[in-house]
Amino acid sequence: MKFTEQLAGAWQKNNSLLCVGLDPDPAKFPAHLKDQPDAIFRFCAEIADATADLVCAFKPQIAYFAARRAEDQLEALIAHIHEKHPGVPVILDAKRGDIGSTAEQYAIEAFERYQADAVTVNPYMGRDSVEPWLAYADKGVILLCRTSNPGGSDLQFQNVGAGKTALYELVAEKVAKDWNTTGQCALVVGATFPGEIARVREIVGDLPLLVPGIGAQGGDIEATVIAGKTTAGTGLMINSSRAILYAGKGEDFAAAARKVALETRDAINRYR
Amino acid sequence: MKFTEQLAGAWQKNNSLLCVGLDPDPAKFPAHLKDQPDAIFRFCAEIADATADLVCAFKPQIAYFAARRAEDQLEALIAHIHEKHPGVPVILDAKRGDIGSTAEQYAIEAFERYQADAVTVNPYMGRDSVEPWLAYADKGVILLCRTSNPGGSDLQFQNVGAGKTALYELVAEKVAKDWNTTGQCALVVGATFPGEIARVREIVGDLPLLVPGIGAQGGDIEATVIAGKTTAGTGLMINSSRAILYAGKGEDFAAAARKVALETRDAINRYR
Repeated sequence: MKFTEQLAGAWQKNNSLLCVGLDPDPAKFPAHLKDQPDAIFRFCAEIADATADLVCAFKPQIAYFAARRAEDQLEALIAHIHEKHPGVPVILDAKRGDIGSTAEQYAIEAFERYQADAVTVNPYMGRDSVEPWLAYADKGVILLCRTSNPGGSDLQFQNVGAGKTALYELVAEKVAKDWNTTGQCALVVGATFPGEIARVREIVGDLPLLVPGIGAQGGDIEATVIAGKTTAGTGLMINSSRAILYAGKGEDFAAAARKVALETRDAINRYR
Repeated sequence: MKFTEQLAGAWQKNNSLLCVGLDPDPAKFPAHLKDQPDAIFRFCAEIADATADLVCAFKPQIAYFAARRAEDQLEALIAHIHEKHPGVPVILDAKRGDIGSTAEQYAIEAFERYQADAVTVNPYMGRDSVEPWLAYADKGVILLCRTSNPGGSDLQFQNVGAGKTALYELVAEKVAKDWNTTGQCALVVGATFPGEIARVREIVGDLPLLVPGIGAQGGDIEATVIAGKTTAGTGLMINSSRAILYAGKGEDFAAAARKVALETRDAINRYR
């Protein structure tokens, strides 16, 4: 099934715009998991099993696995989510960006090796750096547009062209009107800038937006949802990672994560 | 030793501005290697051993390893180069770009796991996405500036500010004058745009430039060297991958690669 259809199905079935980011940091794991050889897989799989009916997507961040030679655990985790929770798409947060044959290798990594349903991609190298991803017709390609960090403004907030458009607006325009010929694209827009989420929504119509930055990064849920929702009250994948993953420190960490995920989903739903 | 010092040492010792890109595609390997379990490592190590006295750096492209679950072979390859060819820096071409704790994980991946001497990084997320890399004081951080592909112009050639500066020029300025506080930075500028190499050189002084795009991608050696060299006749890492790696198709592939690497190094040196 196409990523966009999976996403629409999960929005509806789970009545949720919440995406749970899987950024596993073993230093923060509960004590009973810390010395297990497959601790990363077990931690993430327990979180996924405890929250799968509350989310529209899961988003594992590949750097946390790669830093610890845990690629095999990432493969196992995505396979586990697909098997146990069909219909919940998995976004591989990798922020890749390269061209030609190299981009093809990255697409093999994300879509064939890891079997991700969508991937995050950096737009700096332009349209032909995106095409090898779009060649996988069922997969989603989520391009960085406006990121939630302070330095995001260094390039993304530069005025371009006649000086009335910021670079992130140009990226939104290009993706929505030019690059997204196959309906596979989405954008990353940080929750720390609700005015800019609204501007992107204005430019891109109903294109899905992945919104990191609520919770630990300080973004406001009400402002994010009001700025970013479509007229149908969907269109968003609002990501929370640390606030959910590390809600509990003991053997009941997954139940604690579920509690925060439920509260976050419901807080989001109040403003849809 | 610092990356920049290693690079300066290799420029001088090997009288070379040539960087050999290690983009191993098993479909193009000689028949005698194809079915070996460690074919990727063996192919790249033989190329490295045959050319190490002719280069200023090696640049493995991580996607070619990750697409084939060959991270262990990439680790072994970089360890092999460090052991057999001390003084020749290894640039991990990964084009990573993320923030905060995620960027820290990517830095662990590149610098601790793989022991790379430098890494390529995407600047789209701004200065704070670069800082976790700079925390490794001996390592090089090579930021994408002007890429050699057609779509490179989509963002990089946009006029910014008062309309007289292209985005790639702004990146060059920011890196040279603001982000490079520790002397660890370099830039990627494609060989397909010699006028823009010259413009970047004008902006950044003696900052090292990694220049992909000669050979298979059509960039001109004479124009590249004249546009990009410093007054000392160095300052460049001119990358060639396919033209060297796949110069021969038989058991003598490494000797064929050496022949092309030698010709390329000498062609570069004619214009220094």
